[in-house]
Amino acid sequence: MQKVKVGVVGYGVIGQRLADGITLQGDMTLVGVSDVKPTLALRALREKGMPYNLYLASNEYVDEFKKLDIPITGTLLDMISDCDVILDSTPGGIGAKNKAIYEEYGKKAIFQGGEKNSVADVFFHGYANYENGVRQQFLKLTSCNTTGLIRSVDCLDKKFKVKSVAITIIRRVADPGDYHRGLTNALQIDKAPSHQALDLMTIMPHIDATGILVHTPVTHGHIITVVVTAKKKITRHDALNAFNEHPRIRIVNTDEGFLGNASLFRYARDLGNPRGDMYEIALWSDSVVEIGDSIMYAINVPQESVTIPETIDGVRAVMGMQTTSKSATKKTNNYLGIGKWKK
Amino acid sequence: MQKVKVGVVGYGVIGQRLADGITLQGDMTLVGVSDVKPTLALRALREKGMPYNLYLASNEYVDEFKKLDIPITGTLLDMISDCDVILDSTPGGIGAKNKAIYEEYGKKAIFQGGEKNSVADVFFHGYANYENGVRQQFLKLTSCNTTGLIRSVDCLDKKFKVKSVAITIIRRVADPGDYHRGLTNALQIDKAPSHQALDLMTIMPHIDATGILVHTPVTHGHIITVVVTAKKKITRHDALNAFNEHPRIRIVNTDEGFLGNASLFRYARDLGNPRGDMYEIALWSDSVVEIGDSIMYAINVPQESVTIPETIDGVRAVMGMQTTSKSATKKTNNYLGIGKWKK
Amino acid sequence: MQKVKVGVVGYGVIGQRLADGITLQGDMTLVGVSDVKPTLALRALREKGMPYNLYLASNEYVDEFKKLDIPITGTLLDMISDCDVILDSTPGGIGAKNKAIYEEYGKKAIFQGGEKNSVADVFFHGYANYENGVRQQFLKLTSCNTTGLIRSVDCLDKKFKVKSVAITIIRRVADPGDYHRGLTNALQIDKAPSHQALDLMTIMPHIDATGILVHTPVTHGHIITVVVTAKKKITRHDALNAFNEHPRIRIVNTDEGFLGNASLFRYARDLGNPRGDMYEIALWSDSVVEIGDSIMYAINVPQESVTIPETIDGVRAVMGMQTTSKSATKKTNNYLGIGKWKK
Amino acid sequence: MQKVKVGVVGYGVIGQRLADGITLQGDMTLVGVSDVKPTLALRALREKGMPYNLYLASNEYVDEFKKLDIPITGTLLDMISDCDVILDSTPGGIGAKNKAIYEEYGKKAIFQGGEKNSVADVFFHGYANYENGVRQQFLKLTSCNTTGLIRSVDCLDKKFKVKSVAITIIRRVADPGDYHRGLTNALQIDKAPSHQALDLMTIMPHIDATGILVHTPVTHGHIITVVVTAKKKITRHDALNAFNEHPRIRIVNTDEGFLGNASLFRYARDLGNPRGDMYEIALWSDSVVEIGDSIMYAINVPQESVTIPETIDGVRAVMGMQTTSKSATKKTNNYLGIGKWKK
Repeated sequence: MQKVKVGVVGYGVIGQRLADGITLQGDMTLVGVSDVKPTLALRALREKGMPYNLYLASNEYVDEFKKLDIPITGTLLDMISDCDVILDSTPGGIGAKNKAIYEEYGKKAIFQGGEKNSVADVFFHGYANYENGVRQQFLKLTSCNTTGLIRSVDCLDKKFKVKSVAITIIRRVADPGDYHRGLTNALQIDKAPSHQALDLMTIMPHIDATGILVHTPVTHGHIITVVVTAKKKITRHDALNAFNEHPRIRIVNTDEGFLGNASLFRYARDLGNPRGDMYEIALWSDSVVEIGDSIMYAINVPQESVTIPETIDGVRAVMGMQTTSKSATKKTNNYLGIGKWKK
Repeated sequence: MQKVKVGVVGYGVIGQRLADGITLQGDMTLVGVSDVKPTLALRALREKGMPYNLYLASNEYVDEFKKLDIPITGTLLDMISDCDVILDSTPGGIGAKNKAIYEEYGKKAIFQGGEKNSVADVFFHGYANYENGVRQQFLKLTSCNTTGLIRSVDCLDKKFKVKSVAITIIRRVADPGDYHRGLTNALQIDKAPSHQALDLMTIMPHIDATGILVHTPVTHGHIITVVVTAKKKITRHDALNAFNEHPRIRIVNTDEGFLGNASLFRYARDLGNPRGDMYEIALWSDSVVEIGDSIMYAINVPQESVTIPETIDGVRAVMGMQTTSKSATKKTNNYLGIGKWKK
Repeated sequence: MQKVKVGVVGYGVIGQRLADGITLQGDMTLVGVSDVKPTLALRALREKGMPYNLYLASNEYVDEFKKLDIPITGTLLDMISDCDVILDSTPGGIGAKNKAIYEEYGKKAIFQGGEKNSVADVFFHGYANYENGVRQQFLKLTSCNTTGLIRSVDCLDKKFKVKSVAITIIRRVADPGDYHRGLTNALQIDKAPSHQALDLMTIMPHIDATGILVHTPVTHGHIITVVVTAKKKITRHDALNAFNEHPRIRIVNTDEGFLGNASLFRYARDLGNPRGDMYEIALWSDSVVEIGDSIMYAINVPQESVTIPETIDGVRAVMGMQTTSKSATKKTNNYLGIGKWKK
Repeated sequence: MQKVKVGVVGYGVIGQRLADGITLQGDMTLVGVSDVKPTLALRALREKGMPYNLYLASNEYVDEFKKLDIPITGTLLDMISDCDVILDSTPGGIGAKNKAIYEEYGKKAIFQGGEKNSVADVFFHGYANYENGVRQQFLKLTSCNTTGLIRSVDCLDKKFKVKSVAITIIRRVADPGDYHRGLTNALQIDKAPSHQALDLMTIMPHIDATGILVHTPVTHGHIITVVVTAKKKITRHDALNAFNEHPRIRIVNTDEGFLGNASLFRYARDLGNPRGDMYEIALWSDSVVEIGDSIMYAINVPQESVTIPETIDGVRAVMGMQTTSKSATKKTNNYLGIGKWKK
């Protein structure tokens, strides 16, 4: 069987990880990556010996690339015409402009959470609404927080029929290495409800959701607390069982030494994961408490890498490689090595 | 009528503010403050010209005080014997030891939240259980987060009969100027349920409460999100009305520029409040959202000063100066200038 | 003698403190303050009962001011025409535009460090080049770091003839309450030499200076290390004596508990200083070390308030109230209460 | 030729990296690693499939290791008796206790910077005093800051005969993932001179050094500014040439996007380096400035990994594998892939 040909447009925090993730899929091949300027990420690519082909989305910096001895395979259009699917991980708003090109070339594309929903046919999550994405042309992935949140809510919903969700997002404000945004000694609150609650309702329209988001001056992962109310009472024991069966949820606790988002970042580095990344959300078993008929718990969302598996699920959906969430996520998980630690 | 004589043991973050607050009460007089070492707080007291009498709890540093030309009025025991009530704001655990002295001298005392509940006859909050504290010998104040949280829950409870509360505490880890504790680029989670939820249930035993606490590397106020479920549905409008009537709750919103805990700290400095403090909790009107039959909202708790009014309420309770929460809190508020901005 | 009439344009972090400082000068009177929008600072002014007259620089937000019940005394032009001197503390770049108005009205003005040097006749420091500013129309103050740095270098220069200065500025990135700028878990370096070194050479052209600036994610004061080489060797003892005689330098040490910039912020709050401010730079006596023929030391610069005294010196200069640095700074210091702690 | 057998005692931040580094040396073999408790690092080792043998330094947690299914190869003493050299990376103070065992077994050992100098025969740096370490029994490595600092000073010294050095250390307070130490919104200053200046003088006794250290609330690398005075003037051009020839110094600049310590951390992750580490210090070419006869520059020290190459140099020294710094560092660099980017 022929491998699906994938290109990555925008070689930033997400784009680099998408490229890495695609090369691990036995049934996909990475045509290349595309960007505009000789960023640090591209300097690193060259220092590594150019494992990926690089295509240029503009001629503006060609001379700089030459001076830096970074080889160019072709233009963005060259790459697009060679691909079956484009993973667009450009900064928010640029994807919408690129869409016209993808349409012109008749290519499928998957956009990241920074774009508006209207850019795509389907607002997509690999577990919660995979089937809606099958053989569509354009998908938009949920953002990092929503992706992680839905993993946990979806697995409760499938067992206990969730009615409502109230979330508190304790948001990291920047990625490690970001200098264009940041916060110093301040918590910042957004108007409620947070977009993640609204997005959850778009993906899972049978659930009522709201939430408050607070920005905090850290870089290693969002923490979300979730209060879930279902049609029947969910016990702590039931919830933990459901979470434990989910391959993309890692159950941890503070007694083991997982004290917060920074412990998880360090653990992923110690695991030797590429870039010190983790695909799974973590869920603290000692955060799970019952309140009335509801269940409350806390998860950690590794913002740089959490959407990679669901984006690859998206490739499987739009190409019709698998037609169910179960079979698609199993493939993605196997190729990415997700869930191995559960054995 | 004779003024009630109050002494402050422990001239740290809380002790300094208690001393300032007592001097503002027309019906109380500050006998003095007591401490052990020539801390920065005591150096500042001297630089200000010794507005308060200083008593020493130990002889260990007498020579240093002399060298620094900081005048000493007497010993801790001298101060205690001159007081009607002691406000013990020593570091956690020392209050329990001091209690033996207060008992020996037959004096009333109010401990701060760092002590164990067993140190006192009553675990006290000026609004939620004032009457339990009347004419008791020993009270323990709720901690800063619990004090602020209960203000908001109590005023809903009085109107709508609260059944359950699920909180997420986004905790500041240090006060401005602290070097003995801190966190760097990390969120830290505690085992659930948080003690604040348990404490709320101790003060308001008819309510079921739970919560998750996450430490964040900031110094200017805790933010707590609260999901409240009452016997009848509380609408956003009803909740805001109830909060608005509470003198110790300040309604703010992000459109005005109150973007988070640091905005409130800056605003208090700009108000010219002593030490840049604020006695009120803030409640963001644009955080208040309905979810199912529950209401969700976010408050800001200024940890250095929030317990001062309730501690002064406690003096009124133990001395029987007023016998109802309503009359006592009104007195305290008037003397501290709380609620003036609402007019 | 008639008091000098002063107006403050731009009621932000610096403008508020200039207004407060002017009202303390027995020989000056504050005509009022001017701004554009109902900021938190102006809401606080109203909550305090409008101690200062407010003039509006634009009609854009008049309705909002009315809705908030903030009384307006007149327009910016009304204020300017009533003043002898304008203190322009608008955001960088706006002062240059305002200059045309000051020229039209024939008024003197003092700009803050955010403007370009070319905006003024003299780039000014109250100690290092006061005489150059006497009876000029337009002055520009040194920025916060340069103001503090020059205090320390100038007092060595006057005694020991400084030849060269190499500085390392460990810069705070935001003020408490700032949400429009910040840095999270990152140090950021600027191209060398830093502008503060260049500015020092402009004010003190006989000195050779360079420096490296590193931004750090904190809000409570810059720390600068300084390596000074003079025509003759400066001993540690000589340096400390010189620093100690300077009214605007506060000698501290770590044994007393002054562990860093946050200790000084806390100390100023504990002193009960308005807004928790400090006018003096701090100099750690236990940082002063000799190296070869040079002397090295560290100072703390409280960025919000350090330029206030030198700006008020500037008023004295442009109005010819005093014609020497010595007499002018003595007046300013007395009215601001600077140096009292040395007695 | 038989490979040198190396064991690592203490599998923490440094120990993990030493173990990784040793396995890359073609002429060394890793006998195993030793620790006490089932830390996150050891849980990660198991999740990776136990690439290294684990020896236990105590029986206290044997049952926990069994429960976690972490296989144990033997005791600390088993490991020691199988080794030629021990790399002791236990927490400060424990190495001194372990030394008695190493002596008893007649083994060589290299201690990290947390121990006192007296623990070892030689206080060691791979470039500055390699020859002193040859065939000694016990070495102590310089700490992370001193290791990086000496790289830069030594390469100037060899060319220009350095007389004096004045450093400002802008220190990170914690590693990513640390919860046992931290600082929040504060700079903290130590008494001068800093130990790094004193340590430099111990290793390079012909140089006069001093320095001031300021702690900052970040985790991704120390930045040090250095003012170097040599017997002859060092120009900017000469200094850059010298730095550029050093394999363990990476020249970067802000125009490329290397804005600070966090850029370097991100770049190392993007390079795919194990754990996102970097062995080289970075030196900003646009920080290098001349001042009088001195040269000033800034370096970045990646605290988690910077001492690994010099520690491996130490193995070469104590075992007499190479007898000159030049030949030893060349071997270490080749095996670690250091300096490849310069080609």
